[in-house]
Amino acid sequence: MTVKEPTYLQIASQKRAERDQNFKKEWLIPKSELPDLTDVSDWITSSGYLSAKEIEITESNAGEIVENISNQVWSSFEVTLAFCHRASIVHQLTNCLSEVFFDEGLKQAMELDEYQKATGKTLGPLHGLPISIKDNFNIKGQASTVGIVNFSFNPKKKFEEDAVLVKMLRELGGVFYVKTNVPVAMMMPETTNHIYGNTTNPLNRNLSAGGSSGGEVALLACKGSPTGVGTDIGGSLRIPASFTNVYTLKPTFGRFPTYGARSGLPGLESVNSVNGPLCPSLETMEFYCKHLIGHEPWLYDAKVNEIPWRKVELDSKLNIAILEDDKVVRPTPPILRGVNIVKEGLLKAGHEVIEWEPTDHLELSKIITSFFTSDGGIHVKRETETTGEPFFPYMRMYGTTPEMKVSELWALQARRTSLIKDYLERWNATKLKTKNGKPIDAIIMPATPFAGSPNSKFHDYVGYTSPFNLLDYTVGVFPVTRADQDIDLKEARGLFYGETDEKIWGDYNPQETHGGAVSLQLIGRKYQEEKVIEMMKLVRDLIS
Amino acid sequence: MTVKEPTYLQIASQKRAERDQNFKKEWLIPKSELPDLTDVSDWITSSGYLSAKEIEITESNAGEIVENISNQVWSSFEVTLAFCHRASIVHQLTNCLSEVFFDEGLKQAMELDEYQKATGKTLGPLHGLPISIKDNFNIKGQASTVGIVNFSFNPKKKFEEDAVLVKMLRELGGVFYVKTNVPVAMMMPETTNHIYGNTTNPLNRNLSAGGSSGGEVALLACKGSPTGVGTDIGGSLRIPASFTNVYTLKPTFGRFPTYGARSGLPGLESVNSVNGPLCPSLETMEFYCKHLIGHEPWLYDAKVNEIPWRKVELDSKLNIAILEDDKVVRPTPPILRGVNIVKEGLLKAGHEVIEWEPTDHLELSKIITSFFTSDGGIHVKRETETTGEPFFPYMRMYGTTPEMKVSELWALQARRTSLIKDYLERWNATKLKTKNGKPIDAIIMPATPFAGSPNSKFHDYVGYTSPFNLLDYTVGVFPVTRADQDIDLKEARGLFYGETDEKIWGDYNPQETHGGAVSLQLIGRKYQEEKVIEMMKLVRDLIS
Repeated sequence: MTVKEPTYLQIASQKRAERDQNFKKEWLIPKSELPDLTDVSDWITSSGYLSAKEIEITESNAGEIVENISNQVWSSFEVTLAFCHRASIVHQLTNCLSEVFFDEGLKQAMELDEYQKATGKTLGPLHGLPISIKDNFNIKGQASTVGIVNFSFNPKKKFEEDAVLVKMLRELGGVFYVKTNVPVAMMMPETTNHIYGNTTNPLNRNLSAGGSSGGEVALLACKGSPTGVGTDIGGSLRIPASFTNVYTLKPTFGRFPTYGARSGLPGLESVNSVNGPLCPSLETMEFYCKHLIGHEPWLYDAKVNEIPWRKVELDSKLNIAILEDDKVVRPTPPILRGVNIVKEGLLKAGHEVIEWEPTDHLELSKIITSFFTSDGGIHVKRETETTGEPFFPYMRMYGTTPEMKVSELWALQARRTSLIKDYLERWNATKLKTKNGKPIDAIIMPATPFAGSPNSKFHDYVGYTSPFNLLDYTVGVFPVTRADQDIDLKEARGLFYGETDEKIWGDYNPQETHGGAVSLQLIGRKYQEEKVIEMMKLVRDLIS
Repeated sequence: MTVKEPTYLQIASQKRAERDQNFKKEWLIPKSELPDLTDVSDWITSSGYLSAKEIEITESNAGEIVENISNQVWSSFEVTLAFCHRASIVHQLTNCLSEVFFDEGLKQAMELDEYQKATGKTLGPLHGLPISIKDNFNIKGQASTVGIVNFSFNPKKKFEEDAVLVKMLRELGGVFYVKTNVPVAMMMPETTNHIYGNTTNPLNRNLSAGGSSGGEVALLACKGSPTGVGTDIGGSLRIPASFTNVYTLKPTFGRFPTYGARSGLPGLESVNSVNGPLCPSLETMEFYCKHLIGHEPWLYDAKVNEIPWRKVELDSKLNIAILEDDKVVRPTPPILRGVNIVKEGLLKAGHEVIEWEPTDHLELSKIITSFFTSDGGIHVKRETETTGEPFFPYMRMYGTTPEMKVSELWALQARRTSLIKDYLERWNATKLKTKNGKPIDAIIMPATPFAGSPNSKFHDYVGYTSPFNLLDYTVGVFPVTRADQDIDLKEARGLFYGETDEKIWGDYNPQETHGGAVSLQLIGRKYQEEKVIEMMKLVRDLIS
């Protein structure tokens, strides 16, 4: 490996400086006035840096924002300005932003105001809604570094075209103003890289924001954006959302447009990256999905399937399967408590709860890892070796796994196809177990073993999330509660499922995790995005 | 390569003998009484071997058959019996059947009659409908040789489970009685293999039935089945359908269930094999699709997308793009005449016709070939080398192409993703060319350069069909006319696009092709199965 000049450190420093220039000086809080709190989520509104109107705007749901702009209560410009200001503060607290382009966002907002003034109508159903977006979505005039130093100034002139999702959201009236930080190649469960460093968790800054959509959730959790977009190929929406009590929806591939996003593993199709909304509320999530799909993404992206947004009515009594512990890594106490809260809530409301076995989860999660590294890490290594940036420990397998032959890949794909058929049949067969003779509506289970984990203590176990990428099921993540050092005491355990289980048990520290997020996954069948949102609403109302 | 005992010839002979035992002796026509005609499509009904009732039954549409059984005009048993008898005769004329299990079919039919008698109702909307199916669909108790000698008795005890499609069609009331012949691994454009040999074209037995669904179309063209199922990964439904004037529909992947079919290239996913109906009429095609999708295949097959069968109303004036000649191989005169018949019909009826350029077709068809051989032919070779069966010339590339590395595959997949996006944009951009400002509804173009081709003269050019496998568009094939030696005279040409073009021009012989089928492709967007059928109806009515 030849380290070329300028070294990766120099390039990274240059790129970081370029980003930092784009913050507005008048909004920057002097270091001495920044809080020394672990939980900074409430500090922003109490600190006095935001005006009452800025707070009112930034605490609103997407639908309310658009309605107030449409009714000329607020201008698109002042809405974007408020979110730029709040995002700037959130960034100082969590290091969540990768690309900062407030001026472009404000210009776009101004144009929307002019359009509205000139025509008397709004451009589309998202007219004036600021949208934050994960670093990998190409935006005209911005970089997509995806946490790789070599992409800092590559392409040199930045991207010339918006990703399809960005283009569509703009046509609907969405306003872009920031991109958010990710780990290297978006293939780590914590958000850190050699360009921007680590994004911290605003609920407890001793904990990681998770990854790979970590910048996005840190911003969202502090309402520096009314709605955001992340991606998920093994848990990258769900892990960070569950670490910050932000709602997310990992759709089935083919529901939302994916073309024009920079991939860490370009050309990989054995498992597909999907994107989905990250939102402070389910109302905002539904608003986003309905309008995006209403804009017929299948006419924009060749891989989107023509499935309109459908109205769903839930049965009055649902059948819910619960998986508490996957028998590979036992969740830590706050998560087990969260599962129990939801279970009790469901039972109390008269829904049927059955147990779910993690059959084949381990094999599914091993296969997905093999897919990730099936090119022997060649694509990632090519980019990192160009500048000499070293791998973080989580990325080590991309440097050590030998490249697979296509015949081996075919065999693995055939095995996966068989496993996903078996899973579907197990789901269908639950009708033999339920009282009403209908199969389960959803599985509820942890997204990770953690209520947030400190940096470098994730131990790379994504077995709670990654099986559902291979299965391609619709998965929502919803908040339940927060970790409490006085309740979530360390379990006494002598027997362990294995080494990772023991390490994670060993690491668990109720004091360290205090205040961390307790969120769970709600898993529906493929293409059940509407139903998953409705079920999350139901669960939210049961436990609130 | 070690040739083991018994040799492939011995195994093949044993397997062939096993099949031949399953014909009913009383139906076998003495060789001396078999016709010496090239066109045998009409001989069956005029020969006197079928009773008037057998003819009435076998000339009916699927909907009529089911209705008559439902109304107790016919029993399911006598319907199946009539098709078994006719299929037996068609086989003697064209060598179209691979697995013959009349007794199982008749037993199933009898059980349906008993069910109807006992309950007073039918089992499902296909109650009693015989369905022929391509060799690769697993059927309990039958082999799936896919034209490979080593699969003749492997698994030894035959398959123990129906493919998902077979299971679903059985639940709907469909009756299975034959499987139909395919080329080796289903990867040749003509239907021949070392087990059963060649399937001939009943419209002109000097010509091939095409491949790989060649057995199926020969049977269908002679009404030895009311409806059949084939598969397509590069043209395998469309080439044979177009060679026999049978209707077919190549759906988008994810519309019909595919699980449990034996693949020639198992685990390949860079391009997916799909299955679709082969039918004597569009009414039968619609009947099949509507009921299959009405049975919710997404609950049976993890790769089927939840898109119900939708009602479609066509605009009164359509925008149709026509591609006459792809500039790689010029179609032979009967096909060019067919294109013109359709074009004139459309114009006369007031539809708008624009030209379509074959932009990227050649690169798309090259990429698909690379995908087929990306495992270096390892899977196919493993099976053929076990028994020592040699490759046919069309299969040579599976023996000579080096295996690809996964990193190369990723690069090729990424390139394909970019090309399919470009194609979609070109389709959308046609709105700038049409009078009503709407994009085109369909492309109409040849399926091959031929109105049927003699054996070994296909020259392996699938550039008219295979781009639409990569694009994953919905494609129908519909009959236009038949080749006529007095009209379709050989063109005088001095300049050629290339070697294959010149060879195909050189081979064309109006006398030899006389009576061959002239069918065309009608291409819709992804998941436009309903609309493609409606458009085929419209075109059929225009030109009839």
